Parts: sequence; C-alpha cells; structure tokens
Amino acid sequence: MAGLDDIFFPSSVAVVGASAEANSGTNLILLDPLLRYGFRGEIYPVNPRANEIRGLKSYPSLLDIPGPVDLVICALAARHMPRIAQECVQKGAKGLHIFSAGFSETGESEGKRLEAEVVALAQQAGMRVIGPNCFGLSCLASGLCTLNDMPTEPGGLAMASQSSAIAVEFTDAAATRGVRFSKAVCYGNGSDLNETDFLDYYGQDPDTRIIALYLEGVRDNRFFSVLRDVAARKPVLILKGGTSGAGGRAVSSHTGSLVGRGEVWWALCRQAGAVAATSLNDLVDLAVGFYHFTPPVGDRTAIVVFGGGLGVKAADDCERGGLSVPPLDAATRQTIGSFMPPVGTSTANPVDGSPGVIWMAGPLFKVLAALDTSPNVDLAMVHLWVPSHTHRANPEIVDDQADAMARAHRELSLHVVGINSFTGSPEAAETSIRTLQKCVGAGVPVFSNFHAAASSVHRFNNYHTNAGKPVPSTRHGKLPDVEGPRKEAL
Amino acid sequence: MAGLDDIFFPSSVAVVGASAEANSGTNLILLDPLLRYGFRGEIYPVNPRANEIRGLKSYPSLLDIPGPVDLVICALAARHMPRIAQECVQKGAKGLHIFSAGFSETGESEGKRLEAEVVALAQQAGMRVIGPNCFGLSCLASGLCTLNDMPTEPGGLAMASQSSAIAVEFTDAAATRGVRFSKAVCYGNGSDLNETDFLDYYGQDPDTRIIALYLEGVRDNRFFSVLRDVAARKPVLILKGGTSGAGGRAVSSHTGSLVGRGEVWWALCRQAGAVAATSLNDLVDLAVGFYHFTPPVGDRTAIVVFGGGLGVKAADDCERGGLSVPPLDAATRQTIGSFMPPVGTSTANPVDGSPGVIWMAGPLFKVLAALDTSPNVDLAMVHLWVPSHTHRANPEIVDDQADAMARAHRELSLHVVGINSFTGSPEAAETSIRTLQKCVGAGVPVFSNFHAAASSVHRFNNYHTNAGKPVPSTRHGKLPDVEGPRKEAL
Repeated sequence: MAGLDDIFFPSSVAVVGASAEANSGTNLILLDPLLRYGFRGEIYPVNPRANEIRGLKSYPSLLDIPGPVDLVICALAARHMPRIAQECVQKGAKGLHIFSAGFSETGESEGKRLEAEVVALAQQAGMRVIGPNCFGLSCLASGLCTLNDMPTEPGGLAMASQSSAIAVEFTDAAATRGVRFSKAVCYGNGSDLNETDFLDYYGQDPDTRIIALYLEGVRDNRFFSVLRDVAARKPVLILKGGTSGAGGRAVSSHTGSLVGRGEVWWALCRQAGAVAATSLNDLVDLAVGFYHFTPPVGDRTAIVVFGGGLGVKAADDCERGGLSVPPLDAATRQTIGSFMPPVGTSTANPVDGSPGVIWMAGPLFKVLAALDTSPNVDLAMVHLWVPSHTHRANPEIVDDQADAMARAHRELSLHVVGINSFTGSPEAAETSIRTLQKCVGAGVPVFSNFHAAASSVHRFNNYHTNAGKPVPSTRHGKLPDVEGPRKEAL
Repeated sequence: MAGLDDIFFPSSVAVVGASAEANSGTNLILLDPLLRYGFRGEIYPVNPRANEIRGLKSYPSLLDIPGPVDLVICALAARHMPRIAQECVQKGAKGLHIFSAGFSETGESEGKRLEAEVVALAQQAGMRVIGPNCFGLSCLASGLCTLNDMPTEPGGLAMASQSSAIAVEFTDAAATRGVRFSKAVCYGNGSDLNETDFLDYYGQDPDTRIIALYLEGVRDNRFFSVLRDVAARKPVLILKGGTSGAGGRAVSSHTGSLVGRGEVWWALCRQAGAVAATSLNDLVDLAVGFYHFTPPVGDRTAIVVFGGGLGVKAADDCERGGLSVPPLDAATRQTIGSFMPPVGTSTANPVDGSPGVIWMAGPLFKVLAALDTSPNVDLAMVHLWVPSHTHRANPEIVDDQADAMARAHRELSLHVVGINSFTGSPEAAETSIRTLQKCVGAGVPVFSNFHAAASSVHRFNNYHTNAGKPVPSTRHGKLPDVEGPRKEAL
C-alpha cells in the first residue's frame, strides 16, 4: 500500500473535472489553490471539452497524460467513479481523492455499491482513496491545498476533519487568531483512509506538534489505541459531531457514520488522554491556547480590567473555567498603586484600573510589568474593551491597548492573554478587529471572553500535567484532572 | 419619602463638579448626555471656578441656584459629600446621585462613616440617595441619561445594575443587537435606593416590559417576594456577580456587598420565577431573545446551513441548548428538494443547502417560505456564515443572506433567527458586521452561535410556560422546566 507521504507530497496531480469556466466551483476548491499555494509538482487538468485551463494544458482523460500521476483528484458525478478508479490504477496512481458526493452517505444501495466498488478496485491495486464527499488533502510543505482560508505561512497544527465545512470554518477562525497549519485533510465518508490513518500519520509528522480532529464516528477499531499513543506525545484536540439525537440523525445523511453513545465515546477519549471540545468555537479556543502557549503556564491568573463589575464577572468566569484568581501580594499591589488613582480602582486581583491606566499603552504596560514580578501570578488576562462612545471619541485607544500587549509579550516572561469581544456597535467592532489583528500579529493569544480563555488554558495545563502518564480507568472512579465536556454537554 | 418618578422625571438637575475643561470625564458621563439625550427640564452646572459650562450658566454652589432642584448629581470627592447632602436638603432636592467612589466599598471606616452620614441626613429629610460609586439614572422618556451607548430611540427593556461598567457593556452590546431601553440605573453601593426598589418600580412601569438585573448582592429582605411578584408579570433576567471565590472577593472591594452562596441564591431566584444568566454574554443573549420574540414561539427548530458538518454541530448545539430539531415532514422536504441540487445536500433537518441556495436571497427565502408551511417547525435558525475567501470573491453574498432574512421576518409567520459570528478574517468580520446591521435593522434577532440562540429561546419558552404559576419549593426535588445556571456554573 502507498504511504501517506506519497499522497501528501505527490510529484504530480491530475484534477479530473477541472473546468474552462471562469467561476467553476471545482476550480475554486480543487485547481486554483494548487496554483495559489505553489504546488511543487506537475498539475494536469482533465476535461475532454477543454484544451487549456488556467494556463495549463488540459487532457481529455487520465490515460492521455504523458507522465506518471501520483494523486488524482476527481469531481465527476458518482456514476463515473468506477471508470476513473480503473484509469487511476492503470496510470499507477498512489491516491484517488473523490470530491463528489452521492455515495454511501445517501443511504441508498446504488451509492453504497459505487463506493464499495471503487474501494475494492483501489485496495487490489494498493492505491489509497480519500473520501468520497470531501475537500481532501492540504499540505503547506508540498503546496497541495484545498482550504482557501489556510494561511500560506506554515505552522505546527494539523487537522483531520470528516466535514469540509467544519475544516473551512475552523481554519478560517483559527488562522485569524494566529494559528498556522502544517497539514489538513477533509476525509468525508472515510471509505478507505480514515481518522485513524491520519491521526497515526500526524503523530509521526515532524512538522506537526498539535492535532485537531473533527469526527462524526470512528471507522477503525485501532482508533483508541492510536489515540492513546499519539496523545502521550502531542496534544490531540477532538470535536465530536452527532452527540445529540438530532445531530446523530444529521450525521447519518452527512457522512453515514455510526455515531455511538456520547458518554462512552468521551470516557474512552479521556482515558486515551485526548482533549475534548464542546463546540466548534471551543475547538478554535483550544487550538489558540495550545498553539500559543508553551508549558508550564500555571493557573494563577491576574485579571486586568476597567470597571469593577466587569472584574467581578471576569473572576467568576476564570474560576468557572478552571483557573484560580489569587489575591496579589503586597509588593505588587504597592507598585501598581503607585501610579493608579486611589479612589474607584482596585490593586487587588482583579486589577480594576482607571481609563488613564487601562486604556493607555505606557501605564497598561507598567501594570503588566508589575504583575510579571509578582510571585503569585502565572498569567495575565487583559480586557481589551472600550465602550462604543469612547471608541468614537478616541479611536486611538485601541492601538494603545494592543501596543501594551505586544510589548508585554515581547519583553516580559509573564504569559499575557487578550480578551477582545465583538459585542459593541459596528464602529467598536471594527476597532476590535484592528486590536485583534495587532495582538495576533505580535503573537498574543486572544479570546472572545474570559471563560473561553480560562477554559482553554486550564485544559492546556491539564494536558501537560498528564500527557504520557497512564490514566486510570473510569470504572474505578472519576478521572483526576483530565477534563472532557461535562455529561450534559454531550 | 420622594417616589422614584420624582427622580426619573425631575424638572431640574444640578451637576456638582461639572467642568469647564473640554475633556472632562465628569462632563462626558454626567453633563453632556443630558444635552445629547434632550433632558426636558433645567440643567444647572455647579462649579465655583466657572461661569459657563457647555453653554449653560454655572453656579458657585447648589445654594446659589435660583429655582428649585429636584435631582442633584455630584462628582466631588467623598469628603465633601456630607456638606453637599446638607445643601441638597436645604434646596429641597428629591434625589442625590453620588457618582464618586471612596465610601463603604473601600472597606475603611472613614468611607463607611461618610456614607452612613449622608444616608442619615437624606432619610431624615425624605430625600433618596442613588449610589455612591455609580453612573446613576437613565430614563429615555425624560432625557436623563448617563449611559452614552443607549440608543435615543426608546424601547421596553429596563436595566438595574450594581456595576456601571456592566451596564455600559450590556447596553452597548444589546443595543447593537436591536434591544431598546426604557430606563436604566447603575446604583453602585446601594446605600439607600437598592435593587429591590428599582425592581419594584420597573415592575409597575408601563414603559417597561422586560427587566434585566446585574446584582452583586441583595440589600433588602423584600427582594425575593418582590421578585416573585414582578416575575409573574414581566420577565426578570438576572446576572449575579461574585458567584466564585475570587469573584466574591472582588465584590467586596467593588460594591462591598455580601455575596451569599451561589446555590442558595439561584434556588431562590428560580423559585421566584426569574431567568438566570450564566455570564454577561448570556444576559445579552437572553435580552435579545426576550426582546424580539412574542409568545408562543415553541421549540421545534429548523436549521438552515451550508455544510453538512456545520449542520451536525448546529443540531448538537440546539439540542444542548434545550430545543428540538425534528425531522421535516415529507411535503416540506419535497418542496425544498424541488429547487435544491440532489447530491451533497440534505432536505432533512438540518437543511444542508448548496451555495446557490443558502447564499442567494431568492432561494434562501424559498427555503424559509417552505419551512413556514411545515406543521413540524416553530422557528428557523439560519447560519449567516460565508468563508472568508468567498467573501473576498463575492462580498454581495452578505446582502443576499440579510435580505432573505429581512423578507422572511416581514412576510412569514415563522420565527427566523440569524446565527452570525465574527470568527473569520478581518474582511469577513467586517461583512459580518454589515449582515448584523441589516438583520437587526429589519427586526431579526441575531446570535453569535446556535447554542446561545437555542438557550435563549429555550428559557423564553420556559418563562412563558411558567410565568405566574406557583413554583414548587426546591426542597421537594428538582424544579420542572425552570432553568437557572447549572450547579457547576455558579
């Protein structure tokens, strides 16, 4: 059988169903990104009705291509797929990615038959199948890419997702928050290559240090043993689809997976040392945390806000998320108190400052520098929020806060985290976007609320406390310090 | 004692500590809004070092003002407050709003003494005190306002908040999502007028149909009986600060309230029929739901998305939030199927459409019109999401989605809800802002994710099922259908 390196790093790719039309959806997803992401090998469009597509010579069929073809990407309707698979085998292709839907996920016998026929043909010839019903492979090191919102700059997170739409939204959202990727795969029905194959491969991939999975079901009974093995070496963040009755029904018409009972699934995942996400937003928050932090971080959190009530709720949210918000030591309080107005503020924790401190680059940095020297503080979370009317009066406030965060990240050993929501007026949201961009550009992790930040950091800490250590069976009681979604979230 | 009408609708207001400086914070919060929100009565700035402030004649002291003064707003330091209170009494003022901090919330005896002295003076004279340590009163019908992000257009939600910063962020965020206000009060330390007084008043206020509270503690032992009485007539949404250890400590330096145990607090609130919020975002989501919907809504939710995996997670999120996502009836599926591509889509529930259906105004409206005729559907939630690269290629997609939502809201009896997150790239977030504005402008409720939307609608339904009915004591078991934050969220 061909290995996964052969298909993530093919020396040539054919795109069957590429089109000469300007607005072709197939080109948008499957052909154009090969050009934009700088695919390193040969690209062969295949279409009997075109001579040239996007400046590349087009071939009437796979068999007309002069050289060898390592990977075939096919967007033709399901009924053509057995013939295409035959041609792939004849050309000695190592992988066939089937973009098209209309196979086993339809629940109909014809779709199931077509899928089984293609897989049987491929397995006989030692060719791997990706899909059907998915966007397939992305690998920044080879320039193979079907996820248009993945930054071209590479990074250490690899994703495998049964759903292409989830992969698109995930990569888009995580990239906006500073995460960079090594590889991704959307594997749809997982007829041949499945979650376990990709997890195993990512586990050994030197370009990958964090793995994110979106699964609707497990196809391979090696999954939990591979997961345990990989999770002991690299964090594996998992979002499970179909944990509700309606979600489970939706899965059956989406990828046709057997969903399994949520509770059993999560107990097994936790035992294997994986990190469980409760929602797509939560998976993004986990990715942002695991991507930006290096252990140890610790859980003693200083909160920096303008507004006492916001500090109270931030403290509630941090504790609910699993972190501690300890009182500050006297020396740190004294330092902060030396430049903070004495009335209507607090130097305890939360640090509740005046606008002249919290919204100004110099004084905000001084607060963070004071927290950096505190023996009681591991990380500082700063509320990057300014009311809409203040934005309108002083839009430069936004740059001040982001500048202080960037400088703190650069100069201090304290971990700094920005809390930046988009809840205000359109003008405020636009300046929030600028704050986010500046912070993210400087390497500062940013979350949309304190609870999301705390809960990401908490699970990061837990993972690094427990990684690689044997985890007791759930049969003998509650697992210590390894957290999945709570029962009612499943 | 003066009634609350006297201070929400004063015929004259004095602002002690108004300033001739252009960038005065006191003016920004306390004086300028009186002008901008069109206060109907006389405005008297008081400052011994100015003759004119913002075009108004300024007076050296309260006693120099020629006419009567109903409400005095004071921003002077705490030590001056007993003298000011004396002068208020001499002028026959009905209310004194103390903006300044430095009283009992400091935990120090001098601050406590000053607060007690002022309150004693006021009570002797029948004058009410608002604060200290707060932004005070806002009332759109009288033009009294200190919350600069409150829209001038009035509406039916009244807020009372112990924290001014929470009130600012809440009104800003809720206003952006279409909520309009009748009144608001930030009452800080609640030395005289407290949560119970304002709740009672809002309960009788004909301009108020929904009440939102942020409390750090309860000052008045009438609270739960007043709450039960008001909640039977109008929804009361409550966010509690200081539910964690660190949050409780923060409360003591913020407003000096006794926080009480979270579990006991919430059990009593639930028994009284209030609606509990778990976070500030959640309070905003509740406000958006209760503001936009009229009962009955029902819980049978149709989900409309582009992307099977996003549909699966949306279904999980809706069920987790307390709604049901039932299979669609055959007739509705057939109608939707008549204009949906047959492969790679689903007419079940979630409706998983192609870009040509979900991202285009005409076809998206046709989906919603089909759902409107379904006997199985109470409301439809539509994912207003387009990947960043698609935004870049076709920014007009955003207008298409918003147009379909606006038309559905106008023409159909189906409840339509938009799900619009700001998770994508800066360009996508900017177009998301436009979608939000268009939907909100058309009266469509919009939430940032399916779980938040579902959980808001679920509690709306529960409130209207249970309002005014006797709720059994928690001592005899779990309360049916009345939901507060789960235990671990307290």
